[in-house]
Amino acid sequence: MEPQNPNYREHATAIIRKSRFAMDIGLVLDDLGPGWCETHIDILPKHMQQDGYIHAGVQATLADHTAGGATGTLVPEGYLVLSAEFKINFLRPAVGERLRCRATVLKAGKTLSVAESEVYAVRDGAEKLVAKATVTLAPVRGR
Amino acid sequence: MEPQNPNYREHATAIIRKSRFAMDIGLVLDDLGPGWCETHIDILPKHMQQDGYIHAGVQATLADHTAGGATGTLVPEGYLVLSAEFKINFLRPAVGERLRCRATVLKAGKTLSVAESEVYAVRDGAEKLVAKATVTLAPVRGR
Amino acid sequence: MEPQNPNYREHATAIIRKSRFAMDIGLVLDDLGPGWCETHIDILPKHMQQDGYIHAGVQATLADHTAGGATGTLVPEGYLVLSAEFKINFLRPAVGERLRCRATVLKAGKTLSVAESEVYAVRDGAEKLVAKATVTLAPVRGR
Amino acid sequence: MEPQNPNYREHATAIIRKSRFAMDIGLVLDDLGPGWCETHIDILPKHMQQDGYIHAGVQATLADHTAGGATGTLVPEGYLVLSAEFKINFLRPAVGERLRCRATVLKAGKTLSVAESEVYAVRDGAEKLVAKATVTLAPVRGR
Repeated sequence: MEPQNPNYREHATAIIRKSRFAMDIGLVLDDLGPGWCETHIDILPKHMQQDGYIHAGVQATLADHTAGGATGTLVPEGYLVLSAEFKINFLRPAVGERLRCRATVLKAGKTLSVAESEVYAVRDGAEKLVAKATVTLAPVRGR
Repeated sequence: MEPQNPNYREHATAIIRKSRFAMDIGLVLDDLGPGWCETHIDILPKHMQQDGYIHAGVQATLADHTAGGATGTLVPEGYLVLSAEFKINFLRPAVGERLRCRATVLKAGKTLSVAESEVYAVRDGAEKLVAKATVTLAPVRGR
Repeated sequence: MEPQNPNYREHATAIIRKSRFAMDIGLVLDDLGPGWCETHIDILPKHMQQDGYIHAGVQATLADHTAGGATGTLVPEGYLVLSAEFKINFLRPAVGERLRCRATVLKAGKTLSVAESEVYAVRDGAEKLVAKATVTLAPVRGR
Repeated sequence: MEPQNPNYREHATAIIRKSRFAMDIGLVLDDLGPGWCETHIDILPKHMQQDGYIHAGVQATLADHTAGGATGTLVPEGYLVLSAEFKINFLRPAVGERLRCRATVLKAGKTLSVAESEVYAVRDGAEKLVAKATVTLAPVRGR
């Protein structure tokens, strides 16, 4: 997959970091390249749902936002990346001290792109796949 | 739809309110009854993504959590409600001062329930449907 | 919802009827109007899966194709309607002599439309909702 | 992934082959093993939609049914595998002389399993990924 924007790294980094909500929940960019992005969240009590597991919404936000970063590496300069829809399966209750996410672009199109995000929970150093998402994104020319 | 738990109201209310993450993002329970639940979030700058829209993750968390509340009205006493998967479509960029959500249960089953959540953005008093989700939930006996 | 094509009825009817696969599985157009479409399939032994239920693929094809018909009523003349993705929940095992489907457009956009399809199984004259789908479609200018 | 049924190969093969609808559309089992299954369909005019592409319903049926075969290798003897829901993204218009599918189980659980299916179109000997699905299946004890 070939970036169309020579500054794709800065562009995708800004997509990840300029989101207030992603910052508010503690999302950290680890690395990115053409068609992929890696992030994590260090888990705090505020990320939990009512039964002591990491909330589905935290996992979904991480999966969606990281897919946006991955797709952002492949859009032309000046383009936004908006989520059109996503689907996420929660494979097991998520517990641990960190959530890690890797998103990869399956198809980069002019009007639609599709990315997949895998979410791993890290507990005592061991990783388990806890969620997998498919995200459809629309590249949109910014104003 | 018939509640199996005479204390269904308290049970579902606890599902909504005892979630740290839902509280952290400002989710408020408005009302609930057998097979439905209504909630809202008053939008703050922290809920935004990088382009000035309400983050997909905020909408997804609201849709997922409200579906949990709706499903929680129909499970037996002592049962948790865990999200197995969900899918959400973002119909238009979300802007406004409030997100409102109504979830209704489509099917309440022993091992799987399915609920739908509609998310509306309220702007200057007018409402627009901005997202719609389908959520599959698994009732699980608590320990 | 306002049709942009004065011949929307003929256009959407052709979308439904010119599909070889839809015809092969016995899909029948019942009626359509701006933003909606109704169809059915009379169930034959060939529609079954291995346990005596109507195959998920039959339900999915009906849901997808009827959503295409509903969306086809709202696109400009000369536009195709291609499915970008869909998600379908099977609410209960489907049995009966007929499957009936109603699709309605949730959002009609220039590059993306979203429709919902409800699939009912008719058995001894009584109807049950057996599946519900959300379909994202892309209007594309035909050659 | 460890089969619980010593006759898992026969059991999963029967899931694939005893489906009337899968046979009707020409689905052929190529191979299977613990947690995976491969199939194909040789494309005929009857598989087309209205614009000359392979119908989304054909791709969806192939993805769903092959996921059932993959999951069937991991269930106990006497268990059915019913699709609870699936989501499929169509990455590009599907054309060619054959559709090939590989499904792999992401998570095998007692009440829910999750599998992924990749659908490739083969045209003039070259393969392209045309669709990807995530399928949630419920193992159910047969009568």
